[in-house]
Amino acid sequence: MDAQQHAQFAAETSRRGEWVRQGNRFTERIADDGAWPVEPGRYHLVVSLACPWAHRSLIVRRLLGLDAALSLGVVDPIRDERGWRFTLDPGGVDPVTGLGFLAEAYRAADPDFSGRVTVPAVLDIPSRRVVTNDFPQLSLDLSTEWTRHHRPGAPELYPEHLRDEIDAINAEVYRDVNNGVYRCGFATTQAAYEQAFDRLFTALDRLELRLADRRYLVGDTITEADVRLFTTLVRFDAVYHGHFKCNRNKLTELPVLWAYARDLFQTPGFGDTVDFDHIKRHYYGTHAELNPTGIVPAGPDLSGWRLPHHRDQLGGRPFGEGTPPG
Amino acid sequence: MDAQQHAQFAAETSRRGEWVRQGNRFTERIADDGAWPVEPGRYHLVVSLACPWAHRSLIVRRLLGLDAALSLGVVDPIRDERGWRFTLDPGGVDPVTGLGFLAEAYRAADPDFSGRVTVPAVLDIPSRRVVTNDFPQLSLDLSTEWTRHHRPGAPELYPEHLRDEIDAINAEVYRDVNNGVYRCGFATTQAAYEQAFDRLFTALDRLELRLADRRYLVGDTITEADVRLFTTLVRFDAVYHGHFKCNRNKLTELPVLWAYARDLFQTPGFGDTVDFDHIKRHYYGTHAELNPTGIVPAGPDLSGWRLPHHRDQLGGRPFGEGTPPG
Repeated sequence: MDAQQHAQFAAETSRRGEWVRQGNRFTERIADDGAWPVEPGRYHLVVSLACPWAHRSLIVRRLLGLDAALSLGVVDPIRDERGWRFTLDPGGVDPVTGLGFLAEAYRAADPDFSGRVTVPAVLDIPSRRVVTNDFPQLSLDLSTEWTRHHRPGAPELYPEHLRDEIDAINAEVYRDVNNGVYRCGFATTQAAYEQAFDRLFTALDRLELRLADRRYLVGDTITEADVRLFTTLVRFDAVYHGHFKCNRNKLTELPVLWAYARDLFQTPGFGDTVDFDHIKRHYYGTHAELNPTGIVPAGPDLSGWRLPHHRDQLGGRPFGEGTPPG
Repeated sequence: MDAQQHAQFAAETSRRGEWVRQGNRFTERIADDGAWPVEPGRYHLVVSLACPWAHRSLIVRRLLGLDAALSLGVVDPIRDERGWRFTLDPGGVDPVTGLGFLAEAYRAADPDFSGRVTVPAVLDIPSRRVVTNDFPQLSLDLSTEWTRHHRPGAPELYPEHLRDEIDAINAEVYRDVNNGVYRCGFATTQAAYEQAFDRLFTALDRLELRLADRRYLVGDTITEADVRLFTTLVRFDAVYHGHFKCNRNKLTELPVLWAYARDLFQTPGFGDTVDFDHIKRHYYGTHAELNPTGIVPAGPDLSGWRLPHHRDQLGGRPFGEGTPPG
């Protein structure tokens, strides 16, 4: 870890050793009633396939068929001291924006920005600046603001009559699960770690009960709530269990959640957006404060993700009145 | 990791990043035909409850009922830069030898000793010097040289007619499993790690087959071979799976080996010598090169060790003509 990473890590750690995620700096919205109107071809979604926050928008973009309207940039899973890099692209340059580093788009929007450069980020292609890195709003806006550009048969991921229930479960899942695994992994005191660990597994036990007799978290179709839980569950055994010490159980030892996660994994839009190689190399290769050797575990055995899940016996209609993405 | 630990770690790493365990420096034997005759009350066995090599001698001593003849010292699971310490004893001093640090007994035997001070070690109490730290010979000698002091009903752990078979399986288990987990954990290159990982799980798969229709590794009773495999298996999910990246599967996911390990765990002399707290605190608290935060995972859930194993259906007589220890 170099000095800059060290300072950043310290800035996100409380005096009691708790990890406190930085706020999202850029919270403007792409919406027809604001400064950044929805326009096909104007914006560029930048993700890391490793990152659970970015993974949300990747899944939603695909479920809704926004591929043509909103282009995609994928950064290298290994972040160096200059942050996320377009080193997977020819010449190390994103072909859509011409950028080599995502940080350039952050500085174009705010020359004084000194925090952690994060994904997902949506860039305005003409000005090569970041419009938003506000990941929880971003995936919702793809559902509610980009409707004109959805594919025929796109599912309703954030239906109005279910929003209160979705918002409530999202808040709980964010606090104890999505961000909870990071609070386990980045805690710097035993007490802060154990508190995060207890909250995480208490929440997973609660979800195990909730999902025992219903196929999806809210209603009887896939919603934004399932997208958000999935992106953490699919990373659980591959990285959080060992690297972040979330090791009371593997996901494969929680029978309901494991079947629920497999069901989603085998649904178009979910498993086909998962890249376990990027996930493992990112976590084990980037957090030198947790894994100084940088060695990436050869396990776990991931073959179970394709096993039958039998969750269709609970009923439910994954896409509601809609259809799967092609 | 301080400079001395760093130098020691480097001394045990090959140019290809492989972990190469140092040889045992003190290889004299306690035997009636040599310089160190067997004498009850003369020697002191020093162990860490965390250490699998020391755990062998602890199990064998208890199975054979050598508790009165050979006294026991237990070091603190946390090693600092001065090595293993008697900080669990009142005043931080081993009551039998008066030593504060095991290193003192090493230097008493060899003032120039500069390697890693290891457990188990057998000390000569009058001279307060180490006689042997040769762990593979030590547990065998407890079986073959200390026979006069065995309890009535002590099992035969190294019977003459099975020694070739026991030696052969011990060699394989040592190379790929006992030491194999360390070769995974202490590898400093991806290639060295992956080679060790493949050998480890290939060996575990082989053992899974071997033990499918036989209760014990050799013959139909517990032998030294089972003792040696057990001390690695009992640590597998608690430390090797996460800390040493031995994570293709948990032990609990290998049904035959998991039942075999539970069977032994529930046999007097095995589970009653296991201290998961010492095991976890030692590994996660001592290897700063692998776990700089020193945070000790709260998992895994260990409650499964007491579940029924049904291995008695395979027959076998754990103690042969003998009886369990009291």
